Amino acid sequence: MHVDQLSSAQLEQALAQAETDYQTLLSQNLSLDLTRGKPSAEQTALSNDLDGILAGNYVAEDGTDVRNYGGIDGLPEAKRLFAETLGVPADEMLIGGNASLTLMYQVVEFALNFGFTNPWKNGTGTPKVLCPVPGYDRHFSICQHLGIEMVTLPMLDTGPDMDEAERLTQELDNVCGIWCVPRFSNPTGCVYDDATLERLAKLPSLAQGDFLVLYDNAYAIHALTADAPKLGSIRDYAVAAGTEDHIIQFGSTSKVTLAGAGVAFMSSSKSTLTRFKNHLGFQTIGPDKVNQLRHVTFFKDFEGIMAHMDKHAAIMKPRFDAVLETLDRELSGTGMGSWIAPQGGYFVSFETRPGLAKTVVALAGDAGIKLTPAGATFPYGNDPADSNIRIAPSFPSIEDVQATMDAFVLCIKLATLRALVGKQ
Amino acid sequence: MHVDQLSSAQLEQALAQAETDYQTLLSQNLSLDLTRGKPSAEQTALSNDLDGILAGNYVAEDGTDVRNYGGIDGLPEAKRLFAETLGVPADEMLIGGNASLTLMYQVVEFALNFGFTNPWKNGTGTPKVLCPVPGYDRHFSICQHLGIEMVTLPMLDTGPDMDEAERLTQELDNVCGIWCVPRFSNPTGCVYDDATLERLAKLPSLAQGDFLVLYDNAYAIHALTADAPKLGSIRDYAVAAGTEDHIIQFGSTSKVTLAGAGVAFMSSSKSTLTRFKNHLGFQTIGPDKVNQLRHVTFFKDFEGIMAHMDKHAAIMKPRFDAVLETLDRELSGTGMGSWIAPQGGYFVSFETRPGLAKTVVALAGDAGIKLTPAGATFPYGNDPADSNIRIAPSFPSIEDVQATMDAFVLCIKLATLRALVGKQ
Repeated sequence: MHVDQLSSAQLEQALAQAETDYQTLLSQNLSLDLTRGKPSAEQTALSNDLDGILAGNYVAEDGTDVRNYGGIDGLPEAKRLFAETLGVPADEMLIGGNASLTLMYQVVEFALNFGFTNPWKNGTGTPKVLCPVPGYDRHFSICQHLGIEMVTLPMLDTGPDMDEAERLTQELDNVCGIWCVPRFSNPTGCVYDDATLERLAKLPSLAQGDFLVLYDNAYAIHALTADAPKLGSIRDYAVAAGTEDHIIQFGSTSKVTLAGAGVAFMSSSKSTLTRFKNHLGFQTIGPDKVNQLRHVTFFKDFEGIMAHMDKHAAIMKPRFDAVLETLDRELSGTGMGSWIAPQGGYFVSFETRPGLAKTVVALAGDAGIKLTPAGATFPYGNDPADSNIRIAPSFPSIEDVQATMDAFVLCIKLATLRALVGKQ
Repeated sequence: MHVDQLSSAQLEQALAQAETDYQTLLSQNLSLDLTRGKPSAEQTALSNDLDGILAGNYVAEDGTDVRNYGGIDGLPEAKRLFAETLGVPADEMLIGGNASLTLMYQVVEFALNFGFTNPWKNGTGTPKVLCPVPGYDRHFSICQHLGIEMVTLPMLDTGPDMDEAERLTQELDNVCGIWCVPRFSNPTGCVYDDATLERLAKLPSLAQGDFLVLYDNAYAIHALTADAPKLGSIRDYAVAAGTEDHIIQFGSTSKVTLAGAGVAFMSSSKSTLTRFKNHLGFQTIGPDKVNQLRHVTFFKDFEGIMAHMDKHAAIMKPRFDAVLETLDRELSGTGMGSWIAPQGGYFVSFETRPGLAKTVVALAGDAGIKLTPAGATFPYGNDPADSNIRIAPSFPSIEDVQATMDAFVLCIKLATLRALVGKQ
C-alpha cells in the first residue's frame, strides 16, 4: 500500500517492524559494496586470451611494426573496427591508450587553455559546461579540477532537457559545452531519442564561442537485451547542421575487454582531430599499438565484438534482474521511491522521497553496505533534492547483489517511515 | 692534416675532390635516415615474448586483479623492479603508462597551472626553465607549447655548467626548473659527475619559487660497455639537502622492451608523488597494470633487466663503432669538427665549425640522407653557433649506418672546404 494512504497507527507499526529488521541487519556484520561500475572477474575473464593472441606477429596491416614508436592516432585497422561501435567513418577516429577518461580530460584541458578555435578561458566570464543531472561524477570532477563552472539541467527519459539546454546556451555567458552519455545514460539508463540528438547537434550554433558536445558513448554497445533501444547518429545530424567540428565522441573497451587494459578512442571531424593530434604530439610519441593490434586480432570484426557483448549481457542481466525484482517486490506502489529499469549500461538510478538519499546511504553504511555517496551524481556532490542513489550491480556476485538489495530496500523503508512518523 | 694548415692550392684541390665525390654521392640516389633515437627491429624483437608471458595469470602479488580498474600508481612489484633502475626506494615510485614523455608533460603542466606548492604561472614574470644545450628537443617542445621561457646554459663534460645554473637561478625572476638527462645525456653522451649532482640537488634552495629538477634518466641502464661511467644518486644528495620534494626522476622501458608498448615510471618524495597522484586521478582510473605485470614476469628481477640490456649493447655497439671509426678515420686531426665518443645512450653529438650545421644537413638531405634538423637540439630550434648535429645510429642496419656516415663525412668536408675557400 502507498505510504501516503497509511494511518498513523499503520505507519507506527510498519516503522517498528523496519526498526526490528534493521537491528537484525546490523547484527549480520555484512561487508558489501555496490559503489562503482566495475566489470566482474567473470566478465574480464572473457578476454583472457588477449595476452598471447599475437603469437609473435607484431606487424600491422600497413606494415607498421607496432612494437616501435609512432602513429599518434592509432592503427588503421583499430580505427576501422571501433568506428563501427560509434557508427562513424574510420577516418574520423583516433585510437588512444587505456582510458577514455584521459582523452576526455585532454580534450577539455585543450579546449580550455589552447582552444579548438578560441580558448574557453579567453571568453567573457567563467567558462561553463552544461551537466544533465543526475550524471557521471568523473565528468564533473574534470570540470571542477579545471575551474569550469557546471550548470545543471534536468535529464529526461529522452535525454537532456533540450529546451533548457538551448535556453542556457543562449542566455548565459560563455557556455562552452555539454556532457552527454547518450546510450544507457549514467546513471538513469535512458537512451537519447532522435529529436534530442538533432537538437544537440545544433546546440553549437547557438553558443557565442567554441562549444563542444562532449559525447561519452561509454555504453554504446552495452545492451542487456536484444531489443534495447538503438541510438541514432549524432554525427549525421551534425554534418547536416554543419557542426561536426564541435561534436566529440568518446568510447573504449574498458567494459568490453579489460577495464584497466583496454583501448580508448574518440571521434570527431578530421579538422578537429588534426588540431587535437597536434596538441597530443607534445605529450606522447604514440599510444600502445601492440594492445590495439591485440584487440583487432582478438575480435577480428564488429560481429566479433557483438558476439562478445552477448556474453557480457548473459552475465550482467541476472544481476540487474536481482536489483529490479527486489525493488518491484518490496517498493512498487509504496511511494517510497522510484526507479527506471534500464535496458543496458551499468547502473540503476533510484530516487528516494526528497531529502532521504543521504540518510539511506548512511543507514546502509552503518550496516556494512557501501553505496555510492548520495550527491555523487551531481556537480559539486550536491543533489538539491537529496534523492538520487546510483546502484551499480555489475561487480559483486549475484548472491551479494541480492543481499545488498535486501538491505537497501530495508534502509529505504526505515528512512522513509522514520521521516513520515517524525512529521506527524 | 688540419685544414688551417693547408695552403690555398691544397684547399682548392681538396675542395675539387670533395665536389667530385659529392656528385658521385648524388648519383647514388640514396634514401637513408639517421634522425631519431628509435630502437631497431632486432632490439624490439628481444622482447617478443612479452605478449603471452602471463599465460593466463592476471593476478598481482597482492592479489590485485590487474585486468580491472584501479591502482593509480601501479603495481608494487613493478615499483620494486624499476626502482632499481633509478636507484631509489620502491615507495618513492609511480608506474605509469607507455610514455615517460606523458609523465613529464603532466608534471610540467601540473607545476605550471596547479603547482606542487605554488603554481609557476603565479610567480613574478614568465616562468622559466633552464635548458642545458645541446639537449632533447621534446623537453623543449613541452616548454614552448606551455608558454614556458627556456634559458640555455652550456653542457659540459661533467653535466650542466653549474656555475651558470646557480647564477641564473638566483638572478633571473621565476626560474622554476632545469631539464636534465643525467646519464648518457641526449645528445652529448656525457654522464653527470657527483659534484654536479650535489649542486643540482641544492639548486631548488636557491630559487625563489617552486623549483623542480626534471631529471629524465632515459638512459639509466643503457651502457654500451661494461666499464661505462656510473651515475651517482641525486636522490641521496637531495635527502641530505632537504630538497627531495623538488627532484622528479623519469624513466621507461621504451628502449628496454618495446618503444611503443613499454612501461614508464617516475620517482620523487612521497609527498610530491601524493600531490601528483591526486592530479592524475582526474585524468585516469589507473595505468595498464596488465602490461606492468607482463614486464615483471618477463624480467623477474633487476638482474634479468641487466642481462637483457647486455643484448641491446651487443646490437648497438657495432653501430656506434661504425659512426666513431668513420669519424676518426676521416676527420680526426682535420679541424673540420669535433665529437664525443659516448659510452652509452642513443646518440653521437657532432660539432661542425661554426655556422655550418645547417649547410651540412642540407647537403646530406639533397643526397637522400635524412639527418636531424640542425638546431633541433636547442630551444626554439635555434643553435646560435649553427654547429651541432645529432647522429642517431640505432635504427638503421649497420650497412646503412656505414653508408650514411660515409656520406656524412663527405658533406662535412664539402661544407668546410667550400667555406674556407670562399673566405680566401
